[in-house]
Amino acid sequence: MTETYETTARTTGTRHRERLGYDRAAVHAVLDEAVFCHVGFVVDGEPVVLPQLHARVGDELFLHGSSGARALRAARDGGLPVCVTVTLVDGLVLARSAFNHSINYRAVVVHGRAEEVVDPAAKQAALSALVDAVVPGRSADVRGPTPKELAATTVLRLPLTEASVKTRSGPPADDEADLDLPYWAGVLPLVPLRAGTPQPAPDLPGGVAVPDHVRSWSRG
Amino acid sequence: MTETYETTARTTGTRHRERLGYDRAAVHAVLDEAVFCHVGFVVDGEPVVLPQLHARVGDELFLHGSSGARALRAARDGGLPVCVTVTLVDGLVLARSAFNHSINYRAVVVHGRAEEVVDPAAKQAALSALVDAVVPGRSADVRGPTPKELAATTVLRLPLTEASVKTRSGPPADDEADLDLPYWAGVLPLVPLRAGTPQPAPDLPGGVAVPDHVRSWSRG
Repeated sequence: MTETYETTARTTGTRHRERLGYDRAAVHAVLDEAVFCHVGFVVDGEPVVLPQLHARVGDELFLHGSSGARALRAARDGGLPVCVTVTLVDGLVLARSAFNHSINYRAVVVHGRAEEVVDPAAKQAALSALVDAVVPGRSADVRGPTPKELAATTVLRLPLTEASVKTRSGPPADDEADLDLPYWAGVLPLVPLRAGTPQPAPDLPGGVAVPDHVRSWSRG
Repeated sequence: MTETYETTARTTGTRHRERLGYDRAAVHAVLDEAVFCHVGFVVDGEPVVLPQLHARVGDELFLHGSSGARALRAARDGGLPVCVTVTLVDGLVLARSAFNHSINYRAVVVHGRAEEVVDPAAKQAALSALVDAVVPGRSADVRGPTPKELAATTVLRLPLTEASVKTRSGPPADDEADLDLPYWAGVLPLVPLRAGTPQPAPDLPGGVAVPDHVRSWSRG
């Protein structure tokens, strides 16, 4: 297995090419850190973008979320062309000039055809991966799906072949002539996603303790 | 001006319709809280989804970010069909069953045609709004754009007419039969976006203090 994804016309971009990378581990790291993704597809020639949950397993991405009957039919019938994008914002980049303001971020864009996972065992494995992608360790501490629940759940599989990661980091890049202007410049870092205090369900029986996988949840 | 957006086939959805709303103020609140959005459009019949910055001014959304030469040509020539989606995740919903796991979130989806802002004064106003959308108050404390910088910047305008907000909140909804299973259930709230300590640019002259609009930045 190569260390980088192949580049294609749609993953090479046109602006800020120096920010683009194809390193497999870097792409995986961003996908794994994000709690959710945005999935784009085409309906009647027009774009639709919806938030969905995702889980990466090796070089496959599993997707779960509402996408509508027509998109699902396409996913069954030869695959649904999708663009899956994950964006992590690391900081606000404040320059002396409005023009040089920017954002520090890491964004992964994946193109490909998503297909429905049909095989029940594969679907069950994908669902466990999805639960664990959101809360690592959770899938071992729940009631697993019944055949009826499995049938009522849709999971799509997208091979990771055409993927890129775009990154900006570091301080603002002001024009030389602006450096002595009296405006503050720098980066306002944004703190990675954090969890608050777990809120037990109102109908939780007494004596069920908050498990470690909930107490220790963190990202980034 | 009415209090809700008109519904259309593509904003009424098919799953969890009870979570969908069209209240103008609720749509605006989500757009205003988010630091960035995901913009979807179609190139060669295939979907593209990219993160961009946005600023809402009344019932218009201004968009700024890379989108590629072909999309820009379409935006100049009659408008680029886009779907703009903003998602705020409020908590992870852990049920006794894997099947009833969910996410508490607020997601706005806007459909429409984005057109390039050409008039220099309108473009300058939109850029100030974009700077202030990311860091409120910042646009008064920077060097404004030169005519050359303005010409090098692309801003798209999208009227807010076809917009919806989908919301899930509250505890997990477990099946009655699962309530006494020995699994913890509840919500793990995610803390709203927070800023860390401002990092002055390495080339910032001494004596330029961190301004209030940086020190007091917050969301949510």
